[in-house]
Amino acid sequence: MKPLPTLIVTFLFVFSCDSTLDAKMEISSVLESQVAAWNRGDIDGYMSGYWKNDSVRFGSDADVIFGWQTVTDRYKAKYHSAELMGRLEFSNIDIAILSGNSAIAFGTWTLHREADNPMGLFTLVLRKTGTGWKIIHDHTSSKKQ
Amino acid sequence: MKPLPTLIVTFLFVFSCDSTLDAKMEISSVLESQVAAWNRGDIDGYMSGYWKNDSVRFGSDADVIFGWQTVTDRYKAKYHSAELMGRLEFSNIDIAILSGNSAIAFGTWTLHREADNPMGLFTLVLRKTGTGWKIIHDHTSSKKQ
Repeated sequence: MKPLPTLIVTFLFVFSCDSTLDAKMEISSVLESQVAAWNRGDIDGYMSGYWKNDSVRFGSDADVIFGWQTVTDRYKAKYHSAELMGRLEFSNIDIAILSGNSAIAFGTWTLHREADNPMGLFTLVLRKTGTGWKIIHDHTSSKKQ
Repeated sequence: MKPLPTLIVTFLFVFSCDSTLDAKMEISSVLESQVAAWNRGDIDGYMSGYWKNDSVRFGSDADVIFGWQTVTDRYKAKYHSAELMGRLEFSNIDIAILSGNSAIAFGTWTLHREADNPMGLFTLVLRKTGTGWKIIHDHTSSKKQ
């Protein structure tokens, strides 16, 4: 009866690796969709990566705001032209699955624009919801000009 | 036999709430110890809140460095006097337990100094290790001067 537990452990290990890999791919896909939406000027599409809830938290430099709608309104006010939106790029992305329904994604963001190229880092906390992985916390920092 | 499952569920719920509360208190204590160490000029004590490993990640504004020793050396080089260290304060701390061994802590840091009062936000990812909760990822941002 020895082989059975070994088989089960192997199955669980492979299953666990598979589900971690699946989660990482799903989260990558969320971030890729956000970048694609941003780069076609679609802020609503970009915001679909976030949990549509009043408790979504967005920290930037030293400011904190809460709520999907508030964040959306801020983005629309701040980036109201193609020139201001520029071309968004995410790089050096590292995704860590912390549990079956929580993960963090850390990476570098760059906004390629005519006038400047602001860039910095992001730490995202994501939760698996009924409609897929969604960002519940976004902490963004930027390079000192 | 109805009451038994209810009792078990209640027990598990209470147990789960208790362990989440315990974890939050342990993490609060890690952060309080860090602040106390900083404010007595003890950078090694401050760094004991971090996982003593080469893969510890520290992101600040747009820069990323790895490794407990590297971070310690940077702190010691950057904050080599009581004037530069100032008095550290953490405020608005929100701790979320993501699983039995992972959590995030988000908050505001302020350095009260004679010359200036730099401040900003931090997102910490913590892991429960054999020696307690330790920071494995620190993303710090600061107010634009």
